[in-house]
Amino acid sequence: MAERVGGRDQQETELGPDMYQLMKELFPICRSITGDGLRQTLEIIQHHIPLELHDVPSGTEAFDWTVPKEWNIRDAYILDERGEKIVDFKLNNLHVVGYSTPVDKYVNLSELQEHLYSLEDQPDAIPYVTSYYQERWGFCITHRDRAELKQGTYRVFIDSDLKDGLLTYGELFIPGESPEEIFFSTYVCHPSMANNELSGPVVNTFLAKWIAEHARRYSYRFIFIPETIGSIVYLSRNLRQMKKNIVAGFNVTCVGDDRGYSLIPSRTGNTLADNVALTVLKFKHPDFIKYTYLDRGSDERQYCSPGVDLPVVAVMRSKPGEFLEYHTSLDNLDMVTPSALSGSLELLKDCVELLEANRNYRVTCLGEPQLGKRGLYPTLSSKTSKDSVNDLMNFIAYADGSNDLMAISNTINVPPWQLYPIIEQLKTASLLAEATTR
Amino acid sequence: MAERVGGRDQQETELGPDMYQLMKELFPICRSITGDGLRQTLEIIQHHIPLELHDVPSGTEAFDWTVPKEWNIRDAYILDERGEKIVDFKLNNLHVVGYSTPVDKYVNLSELQEHLYSLEDQPDAIPYVTSYYQERWGFCITHRDRAELKQGTYRVFIDSDLKDGLLTYGELFIPGESPEEIFFSTYVCHPSMANNELSGPVVNTFLAKWIAEHARRYSYRFIFIPETIGSIVYLSRNLRQMKKNIVAGFNVTCVGDDRGYSLIPSRTGNTLADNVALTVLKFKHPDFIKYTYLDRGSDERQYCSPGVDLPVVAVMRSKPGEFLEYHTSLDNLDMVTPSALSGSLELLKDCVELLEANRNYRVTCLGEPQLGKRGLYPTLSSKTSKDSVNDLMNFIAYADGSNDLMAISNTINVPPWQLYPIIEQLKTASLLAEATTR
Amino acid sequence: MAERVGGRDQQETELGPDMYQLMKELFPICRSITGDGLRQTLEIIQHHIPLELHDVPSGTEAFDWTVPKEWNIRDAYILDERGEKIVDFKLNNLHVVGYSTPVDKYVNLSELQEHLYSLEDQPDAIPYVTSYYQERWGFCITHRDRAELKQGTYRVFIDSDLKDGLLTYGELFIPGESPEEIFFSTYVCHPSMANNELSGPVVNTFLAKWIAEHARRYSYRFIFIPETIGSIVYLSRNLRQMKKNIVAGFNVTCVGDDRGYSLIPSRTGNTLADNVALTVLKFKHPDFIKYTYLDRGSDERQYCSPGVDLPVVAVMRSKPGEFLEYHTSLDNLDMVTPSALSGSLELLKDCVELLEANRNYRVTCLGEPQLGKRGLYPTLSSKTSKDSVNDLMNFIAYADGSNDLMAISNTINVPPWQLYPIIEQLKTASLLAEATTR
Repeated sequence: MAERVGGRDQQETELGPDMYQLMKELFPICRSITGDGLRQTLEIIQHHIPLELHDVPSGTEAFDWTVPKEWNIRDAYILDERGEKIVDFKLNNLHVVGYSTPVDKYVNLSELQEHLYSLEDQPDAIPYVTSYYQERWGFCITHRDRAELKQGTYRVFIDSDLKDGLLTYGELFIPGESPEEIFFSTYVCHPSMANNELSGPVVNTFLAKWIAEHARRYSYRFIFIPETIGSIVYLSRNLRQMKKNIVAGFNVTCVGDDRGYSLIPSRTGNTLADNVALTVLKFKHPDFIKYTYLDRGSDERQYCSPGVDLPVVAVMRSKPGEFLEYHTSLDNLDMVTPSALSGSLELLKDCVELLEANRNYRVTCLGEPQLGKRGLYPTLSSKTSKDSVNDLMNFIAYADGSNDLMAISNTINVPPWQLYPIIEQLKTASLLAEATTR
Repeated sequence: MAERVGGRDQQETELGPDMYQLMKELFPICRSITGDGLRQTLEIIQHHIPLELHDVPSGTEAFDWTVPKEWNIRDAYILDERGEKIVDFKLNNLHVVGYSTPVDKYVNLSELQEHLYSLEDQPDAIPYVTSYYQERWGFCITHRDRAELKQGTYRVFIDSDLKDGLLTYGELFIPGESPEEIFFSTYVCHPSMANNELSGPVVNTFLAKWIAEHARRYSYRFIFIPETIGSIVYLSRNLRQMKKNIVAGFNVTCVGDDRGYSLIPSRTGNTLADNVALTVLKFKHPDFIKYTYLDRGSDERQYCSPGVDLPVVAVMRSKPGEFLEYHTSLDNLDMVTPSALSGSLELLKDCVELLEANRNYRVTCLGEPQLGKRGLYPTLSSKTSKDSVNDLMNFIAYADGSNDLMAISNTINVPPWQLYPIIEQLKTASLLAEATTR
Repeated sequence: MAERVGGRDQQETELGPDMYQLMKELFPICRSITGDGLRQTLEIIQHHIPLELHDVPSGTEAFDWTVPKEWNIRDAYILDERGEKIVDFKLNNLHVVGYSTPVDKYVNLSELQEHLYSLEDQPDAIPYVTSYYQERWGFCITHRDRAELKQGTYRVFIDSDLKDGLLTYGELFIPGESPEEIFFSTYVCHPSMANNELSGPVVNTFLAKWIAEHARRYSYRFIFIPETIGSIVYLSRNLRQMKKNIVAGFNVTCVGDDRGYSLIPSRTGNTLADNVALTVLKFKHPDFIKYTYLDRGSDERQYCSPGVDLPVVAVMRSKPGEFLEYHTSLDNLDMVTPSALSGSLELLKDCVELLEANRNYRVTCLGEPQLGKRGLYPTLSSKTSKDSVNDLMNFIAYADGSNDLMAISNTINVPPWQLYPIIEQLKTASLLAEATTR
């Protein structure tokens, strides 16, 4: 159970099982960067939040890229000479190289080998392989199965098609007092893999639901996109508004495992998103791993690219590429736990609450205020009487209008949520004012 | 004996016994933030320096504070059933809670306990307790004595009064060439305790005397005030002038013990006062403790508060609150030594001399000057001939008008006082000029 | 053999023996800060590069200095009572104190001793001693020989003259596309010593030759001067142009020994010269020693002096004064090796190539470019497909126009020469443009 912060109810935090249930529902679907599986996924998420769907036709230019043809697949297998299915798409959709062209022919073992992918050092894992931008066909199998293949003739069958169609993505805008936006991105293009990447969409779905429950200072925007081409398409359509409105953004990925937290900073490393994520992680999960921007791997590559330069960080538990199960059939439902999903959701809620609470504060009087007469300071002065009011006095000492709440929190080494009640006390006593919004 | 620096005479530094004598004279007086003890203390200091006294009436508003009533006390004790004084103010004025209201009544042990203060982990120490802003009465006793109290009836007697009167403080202004001021603050509100806080007033008294002996570049201002309310009152009356004139300030406190030096930086940590104190401490007492502003505890809390923002540091030996004897009867004349007082005085003199000497210097020629023809460089060039003129050459290398003496001293890692004669040599040779005053 | 970088031919790097040959030719000459030996040295260098010679008359004012009289020496010796030459200038020109006035007389041992220089802790070394600016005569001998001197009469003979003449220096300007200059300085005033200082002139000679072989973006200037007075004279005549044109400069000294590399940064430490030298040394010789400007000892003292402030660093192997043989007869041809000279030449070529290649680059598209369609990225995406293009992707990620090549190289921790082909690929694909020249 995550540590309690702010004024959140206990119930709100116990959504782990519900999130896990949604993940189980989404897991079997064969997603890709286009196609029916992607749309089906977004439609299921629509049962939880009012996602608006956008369709972008194949051939659409997006910066240096072009939206590819739409890919759909119905079935695929390899039959051996006895007619037995030795590889079956219906048992695991990772068996087919993503975007495989249709094929139905007999090949000998040698030709078959040229179309097989396996991992020698993970002999029981089916690897996840795609070929979005070059037409080819192929099958992914465990290295153990591959080693047992015998000379002979095999029938390879892929019932797919690759034709002009649509790239679909989902978007949710939750308006707040301010047109300034907090941006959350996650991707929905991976077939049956759990941590990377159903954990991101699942957690973001429940985060959006929670945000929408209350009036907020900031506006919030969530997008559920195919990785890379999706963020590029989205940026190419919205960049000007994004640069104008987004004050902090989070790419949420690989947040379903139980292995601690990690962060990829933005390219500059000093944005509001960096500060918020670092502050929350430092106080709640001091053992988190802070990667550098050189370790990036997902859509933060686009959000932080030269000229785009959005204040976006990637929040993760195990970083993509850094866990053994990554991009294999081992990244299954066993890798993700309800409590891990719940912890990740709490972390993001903490970030949201801190963003909402963060302001530049200044004390309204010169010198220290006389807190004793307001019941905020011990009236009896003895050797240790200041200890009990240390956080309060330190907050006041730095509330000079030039430091925001986060900066003060880090300077005085007190979690921001521990300062929320202090801020309320001081406001009530008219001793604290906002200096500027940011 | 402190290390000799600058051109100071040996005699000047041997004032330890005189300072200790003044402390002994002041020790028995029962001081508080107002009252006769405070005035008596200032009058004794007037025998040494021409302190001007200021009276501020009770009820005067000062920022968020109000000057409290004046408190005076003549006697106080607790009698047991046999009529024996088990607690006697005349033996130790710490026995009475500061600002205790008058009382004269019989109480049982249970009621008495509610008015007693002791320290369980320092059973032989009488604690120092005050209640300036809430009316109550109380006695402070050793925990050992308290443990021996038996059931029974006790007479509690405090002959004090708390009525409209005056808060008194002392001020000394020593004009120099420039209206720019160096500011020294110390407090005179503690009853019989030696390190905290008679050492501060005693050292500042002798420092002021020494400063007044010679014409100075800067003006100097000393204030002797009650802690907290005194600095707030002083600031509320003088803030505009202080912000205009003060270039460096020092709160001098707990400078009588023999336990090394320490510093609390200003809130920003980069003022002239910080630089001077750090430079002197680094070269003379490299084992000094540099605290952070979070460790503040005395009037630097006011001088550095938001909107006040004066360049003030606190110079100490043992930091208030960090030594066991703090705010107890153990902080007595045994805790302070003449040599410790003398060392502290020397330290502050070094700061003053550095402030007076500190300037932005620039060499008057391009390239290195030819020092050989002026007898400042060996005429014979051999393998090691540069060693003897290293400090000289390094000083010249950085005297570009953009660095002040302190910056150069720290860059080339040579104590500033070791550069004073070099500066004189270069000036005499017309090779050095002042760039700007600061 | 130095590591290969850029597109340099193998042959170019094998100049060690040629450089060593030039050093052997120059070694026997008795150089000083003026005189025939200095001119003869410059004339031999003219056989390799078209050095222009400049003559500056004795008595010429240069900043705080005056060009001294010209010194020439033909012979010198000490005869013992039996008429044997116990010290002979013709065997080693270090035996005579540089700038010794003529003498021919008989002295007893006691008087002789006043004119002898030796090194007690290096008893087999003849020290190098000069007295440019105070007239005296003297001999340098090994401490071992000195210890064997007996009472008696000695004839001391120095056939030198010290009269108005010329200080001569050499200069080579190699024009490039831009009037911005890269500046190389080295000194030619030391008698028979190899590392300090024939290695500098020899390496700079071959470096200049190599630079002149190709058209260059920058202009290049080499000067071969007597130390200290030479740089002061040169600065006093050219300072305005130097400050206008020089973007990076290198004082090249002690580059002939086999003992690793070292660097003295400029006074500010952050010039283009600092960045280039640090980047090359970090990637090619990560065990190099980075001194501070306080360790300076040669003409960087003048180039970086206040008001001169040129962007000049000193590139060295063993730092002058830091090796045992320094300024003694032990610094002979055995101390220098062809491969050490060759390595130093390569290092400077790397600096030149990096200066030529260094620019602020920016990618021409928003978001990551689609490298797959250009054959620059694997078309098959699997678990490890990004590893092969890591440097490429990281370069693109930071090519935002605000970082120069060096900054990117250091940020992504890839040697700049490893990025040269990547830059070419991206330019060919029109994905990369120059932002500004610097």
